[in-house]
Amino acid sequence: MTRILKGMRVVEGSAFVAVPLAGMQLAQMGAEVIRFDRIEGGLDAGRWPLAPSGRSLFWAGLNKGKKSIAVNMRSPEGQELITRIVTAPGEDAGLFLTNLRVRGWMDYETLSQYRRDLIMVTLMGDRHGRPQVDYTVNPALGIPDMTGPEDHDAPVASALPAWDLIAGNMVVSSLLAAERYRLRHGEGQEVEIALKDVAAATIGHLGMIGDAVLNDEERGKAGNSLYGAYGQDFICACGQRVMVIGLTARQWSGLVKITGTGRQMEMLAKRSGRDLRDEGVRWALRHEITDILAPWFAARRVGDFADSFDKAGVTWSIFRSVKEAVRHDPDLGEANPMFSMLDQPGLGRFPVPGCAAEFSARARTKPAPAPDLGEHTEEILGDVARLSDTEISQLFDKGVVESPRYTARSAA
Amino acid sequence: MTRILKGMRVVEGSAFVAVPLAGMQLAQMGAEVIRFDRIEGGLDAGRWPLAPSGRSLFWAGLNKGKKSIAVNMRSPEGQELITRIVTAPGEDAGLFLTNLRVRGWMDYETLSQYRRDLIMVTLMGDRHGRPQVDYTVNPALGIPDMTGPEDHDAPVASALPAWDLIAGNMVVSSLLAAERYRLRHGEGQEVEIALKDVAAATIGHLGMIGDAVLNDEERGKAGNSLYGAYGQDFICACGQRVMVIGLTARQWSGLVKITGTGRQMEMLAKRSGRDLRDEGVRWALRHEITDILAPWFAARRVGDFADSFDKAGVTWSIFRSVKEAVRHDPDLGEANPMFSMLDQPGLGRFPVPGCAAEFSARARTKPAPAPDLGEHTEEILGDVARLSDTEISQLFDKGVVESPRYTARSAA
Repeated sequence: MTRILKGMRVVEGSAFVAVPLAGMQLAQMGAEVIRFDRIEGGLDAGRWPLAPSGRSLFWAGLNKGKKSIAVNMRSPEGQELITRIVTAPGEDAGLFLTNLRVRGWMDYETLSQYRRDLIMVTLMGDRHGRPQVDYTVNPALGIPDMTGPEDHDAPVASALPAWDLIAGNMVVSSLLAAERYRLRHGEGQEVEIALKDVAAATIGHLGMIGDAVLNDEERGKAGNSLYGAYGQDFICACGQRVMVIGLTARQWSGLVKITGTGRQMEMLAKRSGRDLRDEGVRWALRHEITDILAPWFAARRVGDFADSFDKAGVTWSIFRSVKEAVRHDPDLGEANPMFSMLDQPGLGRFPVPGCAAEFSARARTKPAPAPDLGEHTEEILGDVARLSDTEISQLFDKGVVESPRYTARSAA
Repeated sequence: MTRILKGMRVVEGSAFVAVPLAGMQLAQMGAEVIRFDRIEGGLDAGRWPLAPSGRSLFWAGLNKGKKSIAVNMRSPEGQELITRIVTAPGEDAGLFLTNLRVRGWMDYETLSQYRRDLIMVTLMGDRHGRPQVDYTVNPALGIPDMTGPEDHDAPVASALPAWDLIAGNMVVSSLLAAERYRLRHGEGQEVEIALKDVAAATIGHLGMIGDAVLNDEERGKAGNSLYGAYGQDFICACGQRVMVIGLTARQWSGLVKITGTGRQMEMLAKRSGRDLRDEGVRWALRHEITDILAPWFAARRVGDFADSFDKAGVTWSIFRSVKEAVRHDPDLGEANPMFSMLDQPGLGRFPVPGCAAEFSARARTKPAPAPDLGEHTEEILGDVARLSDTEISQLFDKGVVESPRYTARSAA
C-alpha cells in the first residue's frame, strides 16, 4: 500500500460494491479502515464470484487491507460499541462510510452527539431513500438502450457495475473533501450521495441529457463503434478481433496511412462530398469507412501488424476474455508493479492489485489481503473502543462480538 | 456549487473525459479550476454529442464552472505563461491535472523547479506510456466478452465510457490525498495513473481475476441477468420492460411474495434438490425462476404493480431510453434539486446537473455553465500570472493568448 493517508482512521459499515470499494481504496492509500459486520457476515459475505472452496472472491477483493470486527448489532451493547468505534477521538478519525441506512442509533444526528465533528458519508439508492442497485439505475437512465449491435432490438446491460464503481470513487473524494473542510473550519458534516444521482449527473456531464432534449434523433445502438468519431472492431485472419481508434486527427491519419487506404478514403470523401478530417463526418460515414478497412484486417494476422501499429502509435487493442487477458497480457500480472501474487488461505494464489495511482512521495507497497470476518475484533475493542480486557471478555461471553481466534481459544 | 473546496486552485491541461471530469467535479465542489487550451481549442472541443448549433454538448458538460484561458503553447512565451500559472504561489494552489503528456517543459521535473511543492496528477493510457482510450482498454480486459445476450457470439462494448469515468474520479481523490499529504509534510509530488491500470485493478477488486485464475469455467454472457444471484428483465403487458432484483434474502422473498409464486418456487427447489435461499442457487436456476415469473409480468401492465412494488420495497426499475428518462423520470429534471434548468448560449435550454454529493455544511448551489474558450484569459493573466496590463496587451498582440472579448474589442 502507498502510505499517503497514513494516520487517517475510517470506519465502514457497508455491503456490496461502492462503499466497500471506497474503504478499500482508502486502505490502499494507507488509511486504517475498520469494517464492521454482523456476526454472521454482511449481506455481501457470499457474493459471487466464488473460489473453488466456496469462499467469496468478491468479498476478498473489496475488503483488502481492512480490519474486521464482528458485532451483534441487534443488541444495545453492540450498537453502543459501534457508536464508540465510529466516534472515537483522534484528529484524523471520526470518519464514517456507510450504505446500510440503519435508522435511529446509526443516524448522523445520533452519532454526532458523541463526536460533534463527525464526518459521515452515506450512499443511498436514490434521493428518495428507495433501494436501487446498479442493475436498476442503469436501465432507468438509458445506457442499455444505446448498448448492443445496431440490429439488436432489446436493451443490453453491461457486465460491469459502472455506477457502483463511480459512486464508490465519489465516496472517497467526498470524504477527503469533507475532511479537508473540517481541518480548516473545525466542522464535521454529513455527506449524502444517491447512486441514481451519480448516474443522472454523469450522463448529464457527458452531454447525453442535452442531446436528448435538444436533438430529435435518439442516440441509438452503434455496436462496438466509437461514438461520434471513428473507432471499430475488426476480425483478423487469425480469428482474433481487434479494436482500432481514429478519434483524434493524428490517430485517424495514422490509421489511414498504416493501412494504405488513403486513396480509398479520398474517393469516399469525394463521393460523399464530405471532409473526413471532421470527426462527426467519420461517425456519419463509419460503415463506409469500415468497409474500406475490413479487408485489410481480414487479410492479416494480429502478429503481422502488432509491432508496426505500436511503433506508429496507433491506438488499438485485442478483444480478450478475462481468462485470456490474465494469460496473455503482462499488465495483468506480476510484470506490472501494481500486482503482487498472493497466496490467500481459502482462496488460492492469483495476482492481486494494489492502488492504481502511483504517488511519488511514497513507494508503492504490496496489497494486503482481506481479513477474516472478525479477525481484528479484540484489537479494535482495545485500541479504538478503549475497553479493558475484562470488558472485552464479557462482550465475547455474551456473544455481542466474535472473532475466529477467540472462538478457537475458547473451544481449546 | 457546494463550496466545500473554496479557496483551492487547480490548473487543468486536458482533453476528453477523465481529466476534464475530474476538474469539473472539483469546480462543482467549490475549487477554482483553470483549464488551459490551445488557441484553436483542445482535442475535445468538437466532441459529440453536439447541440443543433454544432457546438459540443460534451465539452460544455465536462467543463462546467471552470475558467478558460487560450494560449499558443507552441511559443516559448506561451509555455512560460502556463508554467507561471501552474506554479503560481498560494497555499491552496500548485495543483495541476493533466493527460496531455507533453514532454520537456510540462514534465513534473521541470515544473517543480518553479514550485517545489507542486502536486501534479497525470493520467496516461497505459503504464508504458502508450495511448489507450476507454474503447481499447475495455475489450483488452474482457468486459465486452461477458456482456450481451447469452446466445450472442461477439463481444459487446457498453455505450458508457466507464473506465474514463472511474479514472476521472480517481484523479480527484488522488489529488485530494496528495494535497492532504502536502499539508502535513510540506512535500509536493507527482501522481501517475494509467487508465488501463485503473481497469485492471478494478476487475481484480471485483474478484474477476481470481475467478479467471482459479475456476475452470469462463464467466460467459448472461444477458440482462444480475450476476451471481437473481435479477432479470421482463416484458409487461403494456410492452414496457422492467428490471427486477432478488439479490438479498429480503429482496428475493419480497419478490416471491408479491408475485404469489411461492408454491412454484418451492416446487422448483424440491425438483432441483437445491435451496433457493442461497444466492448462488438462484443464479444457477435463473432460467427456471424466470420461467415462473415471466407469465406474471406478461399478464400485467407496469401501472398495475408499480405502487405495490414501491410500497413493498421491491428493488426494480423501468427500462428507458435517455429521451424517455428525461421526459418521464422526475429525478432527471428540476424536481431533483441536483438539476437546474440553464439557458446556455449556443447550446439551448436543458436540465444541467450539479454535484451529485450533498454536503450538509454547505447548501448545494446551481451548476455554473462552461466558459467560452479563452473567456478568462485576461483575468487569469492578471490575477494568477500577475502580469501588468502592458504585458497582457503585448501577449494578445503577439497572438500568444486569445479571448473572445479581447478579439471583439480589437475589432471594434
